[in-house]
Amino acid sequence: LIRLLYGGICNTDIELQRGYYGFRGTPGHEFVGEVLEADDPSWVGQRVVGEINLACGKCEWCKRGLGRHCPTRTVLGIVKQPGAFREFLTLPERNLRRLPREIPSEEAVFVEPLAAACEILDQVRIPRGTPVAVLGDGKLGLLVSQVLKAHGTQVHQFGRHKDKLRIAEQVGVSTEIAKKLPVAKYEFVVEATGSGEGLRQAVQMTQPRGTVIMKSTVHGLVAIDSAPVIVNEITLVGSRCGRFEPAIRLLESRKVRVDAMISEVLPLKKAPEAFRKAATPGVLKVLLHD
Amino acid sequence: LIRLLYGGICNTDIELQRGYYGFRGTPGHEFVGEVLEADDPSWVGQRVVGEINLACGKCEWCKRGLGRHCPTRTVLGIVKQPGAFREFLTLPERNLRRLPREIPSEEAVFVEPLAAACEILDQVRIPRGTPVAVLGDGKLGLLVSQVLKAHGTQVHQFGRHKDKLRIAEQVGVSTEIAKKLPVAKYEFVVEATGSGEGLRQAVQMTQPRGTVIMKSTVHGLVAIDSAPVIVNEITLVGSRCGRFEPAIRLLESRKVRVDAMISEVLPLKKAPEAFRKAATPGVLKVLLHD
Repeated sequence: LIRLLYGGICNTDIELQRGYYGFRGTPGHEFVGEVLEADDPSWVGQRVVGEINLACGKCEWCKRGLGRHCPTRTVLGIVKQPGAFREFLTLPERNLRRLPREIPSEEAVFVEPLAAACEILDQVRIPRGTPVAVLGDGKLGLLVSQVLKAHGTQVHQFGRHKDKLRIAEQVGVSTEIAKKLPVAKYEFVVEATGSGEGLRQAVQMTQPRGTVIMKSTVHGLVAIDSAPVIVNEITLVGSRCGRFEPAIRLLESRKVRVDAMISEVLPLKKAPEAFRKAATPGVLKVLLHD
Repeated sequence: LIRLLYGGICNTDIELQRGYYGFRGTPGHEFVGEVLEADDPSWVGQRVVGEINLACGKCEWCKRGLGRHCPTRTVLGIVKQPGAFREFLTLPERNLRRLPREIPSEEAVFVEPLAAACEILDQVRIPRGTPVAVLGDGKLGLLVSQVLKAHGTQVHQFGRHKDKLRIAEQVGVSTEIAKKLPVAKYEFVVEATGSGEGLRQAVQMTQPRGTVIMKSTVHGLVAIDSAPVIVNEITLVGSRCGRFEPAIRLLESRKVRVDAMISEVLPLKKAPEAFRKAATPGVLKVLLHD
């Protein structure tokens, strides 16, 4: 049993409200809370974040440490599991991660999306020093560019908002307002625009034999021109949730800065207003607190 | 200077005739010939096949042995280079490969498409013994399934034509008429249907964290549902031309059987009729001879 401290509104939450995935019930999968009750008493009083995939723990995927792909999983606030935007929630103890005291609760809300950004490095080997392009300057794009920078790659981020790109510049990411995008320039391109158009642009920017990492969940069908993918032998890698541990370490070491990404903090009872704000163009992370 | 012995009609040739790529001139990129004249006299009289990408030999890609991706390349019968369907053609000597006498000329025409099938193993590490699905039973699908079988994987091919699938069965590939396709079953799926629909089916058949190898060049935009790619973290790998050496070795060792894939052999002067036949559903390889 966990008492909510903060929740973070993600684009997925907004899409769920619009009826995607057919989810009904309490939304919310980014949260920080305090454990009130637990079978293992050592959890009580701990400040925690929670892995959002509730896996069976027994199948082949779970045994490989990939419960995030367990076929019978439920997902907090997304698939058949009431979400975190409420005063009290429950999660299995194996989903919990203790937070080091160095991470303020407002920033710890970012552990879950930051883990999704870190997932790229679990899937694709990107040597340090390699130039990498990040397409998009939304919440996920800003976390991705910072993670790749912390990893030691040479990150160049393309976006549409000077003020958002400035957040990535703080940690040394070079940025550019996306007007004319380069062609066949990068060995690695991360697509985080949140739009269907982004994937086509990312493919165009990628060198022969290069890799596009797909981080945008776009609903419905996306039209891609398969010819350049095949002619240039490009690899596209779908990428979703990640392990929490690297994300917690990055926040603890302050190699990734998320404080400037908090646009607003509102109480849980003003959740409808918070959702409206979060859906407003230009707004980054909106937090809910109890 | 090369005298044509045999040419093979590929689907790409038929698409070029329909106006794709804006290519004009003599088509043809699959051929076997005899060298008549050469700067290096040791080539004269040799029976050869020819790498179709005419690369600059100097750029970064060429230096890495990837002239197939040289940005200033021309491509025999496809991009700014007259093709092989004529009595005499020329190619740079570095594009030529000598044919071992064990390979009949009619079969050596398959070196180029077989190299494209072998390319999969240059791009993706598929451990021996792994179950692999091949989607499609056209010319390329049949070469792919045989190459993967020769590599030692456990190949299951889905197609629409019993008579075509029988060719793959000869080398021990298990086959199935594609009706209800399995869901999330295979770690590796090769898409070789030649249709836009094939990519969506291939993604559906692939396990979480699995790989789809894209071998169909489909013109225009292909609609894909990006959600399963991202949710299941699937990797899509575009795959095109390959090195000739492994293909020559496979034909020499008779681990891949192409004789049953020859539907018809017609003289060069009957090329229009040969193209019509090659475009007829159910027909596999149509050869031209001088």
